[in-house]
Amino acid sequence: MRKIRLTIEYDGTDYVGWQRQPNGPTVQEKVEAALGAVVGRKVDVISSGRTDAGVHARGMVAHFETDLDLPLTAFREGVNTHLPDDIAVVAAEEAPAGFHARYDALAKRYRYTILLGAIRSPIRKRYSWHVRRSLDVGAMRQAAAGFVGRHDFAAFRSAGCDAGTTVREIFSLGISRHGRLLHFDIVGDGFLRNMVRVIVGTLVEVGSGKRPPEAVTELLAGGCRDLSGVTAPPQGLCLMQVWYEGEPADWQGDAKACKSCQKSLDN
Amino acid sequence: MRKIRLTIEYDGTDYVGWQRQPNGPTVQEKVEAALGAVVGRKVDVISSGRTDAGVHARGMVAHFETDLDLPLTAFREGVNTHLPDDIAVVAAEEAPAGFHARYDALAKRYRYTILLGAIRSPIRKRYSWHVRRSLDVGAMRQAAAGFVGRHDFAAFRSAGCDAGTTVREIFSLGISRHGRLLHFDIVGDGFLRNMVRVIVGTLVEVGSGKRPPEAVTELLAGGCRDLSGVTAPPQGLCLMQVWYEGEPADWQGDAKACKSCQKSLDN
Repeated sequence: MRKIRLTIEYDGTDYVGWQRQPNGPTVQEKVEAALGAVVGRKVDVISSGRTDAGVHARGMVAHFETDLDLPLTAFREGVNTHLPDDIAVVAAEEAPAGFHARYDALAKRYRYTILLGAIRSPIRKRYSWHVRRSLDVGAMRQAAAGFVGRHDFAAFRSAGCDAGTTVREIFSLGISRHGRLLHFDIVGDGFLRNMVRVIVGTLVEVGSGKRPPEAVTELLAGGCRDLSGVTAPPQGLCLMQVWYEGEPADWQGDAKACKSCQKSLDN
Repeated sequence: MRKIRLTIEYDGTDYVGWQRQPNGPTVQEKVEAALGAVVGRKVDVISSGRTDAGVHARGMVAHFETDLDLPLTAFREGVNTHLPDDIAVVAAEEAPAGFHARYDALAKRYRYTILLGAIRSPIRKRYSWHVRRSLDVGAMRQAAAGFVGRHDFAAFRSAGCDAGTTVREIFSLGISRHGRLLHFDIVGDGFLRNMVRVIVGTLVEVGSGKRPPEAVTELLAGGCRDLSGVTAPPQGLCLMQVWYEGEPADWQGDAKACKSCQKSLDN
């Protein structure tokens, strides 16, 4: 049996999330249907995790098994011809027999994008949260540092989160400004449901002076969701990368950026 | 009578173009309807020019007249509440009585974006043309230099173009790469219908080895549309800026970019 690892990009706007469910179209069912069309039978795809309704991905990782002797291009170009425009397999690789996209994930990077300024932007709205208030980025960076490390994130998740343990480790949380865009690059060993969005919502409240930067420590210690910030809307969030064993452990450093101007190199 | 100058951003995906016409929704009619709702009567808006179906704008300029004593915010925030999500007034200013958005335009900058690489990208497709062939950017830059200056662009326009004269001046044509994205920033005193898209289509043929860089000179001299390249698709094109008298004449220099890494500063 071969195990194939896929890297998948999608625009989540028109989906109720990654995971198959009865109340609307999901990315998983589209990927499974496209793979099914290529291999000629039903395929189960296991991903590194879920993404919520409206959340995007540039580097979702998933695996499936097959006993067919097709070339890898069949699982990339071939599958892409069966996928809608807003989903694409960007890489297909042979994986070791024991590989598991969810259990083996060592780290993930999410990016959250805020659009600053008084005026909304039609061209950026699909992938950003428009925040009209002016934000103190220095205060937000100070608060962001409070999230880094191993913490109980019970206060930073959705009410519907059913994770067994709520302890996670954040390796880095960088905030960088690029014109009107503010990028939050957050790398950790795992994330609870809505965790990134509640963290960003809380940081925005710090940036707009509603909370002091030191509040983060108290919120983490208290463990109460009702006390932390709003959940930032989904369209600003994108799953950028998932790391596995044997890959360069560069997640503990900063997100990729130009050494001179700090602009992100993620184009 | 007051004259108000508007700067307008729009995602052109769902429009048949800027200019009012019977065969589908246009940006102009949405802007006129939103202004009409604010001033309480029919408003005629005159723009710096048209954009084609599916073409975007970040800096379309237009003007209208009014005898109402409303503050400028009424023509920005107020009008925006009546506009759909994919159109926004980003600036409203008082203009001199003699100002005319079309006749007074001194220069315009368009950006065309190509997505490189074998695999399509769901997140970038809305604002780029996906070119799978590998492109020789050096050859394209050499060819691009041939467009700069005052030329008869009769060979670089759509069949339906009805301009009186086909002579235009291109001040600069820069090509810059940012990861998988290739930006063509083209500044000129005016553009024929489809002119930027035919220029880009021709440059792509140079970049993929179908034509030598020197061909541009011959195509310009020949004046025959049938001999120049394909028309690049509309979604890669965006009207970035329009210049008028009294404004910094920085259009003759390069497009804004980071001095260190050449990344565009247009975020």
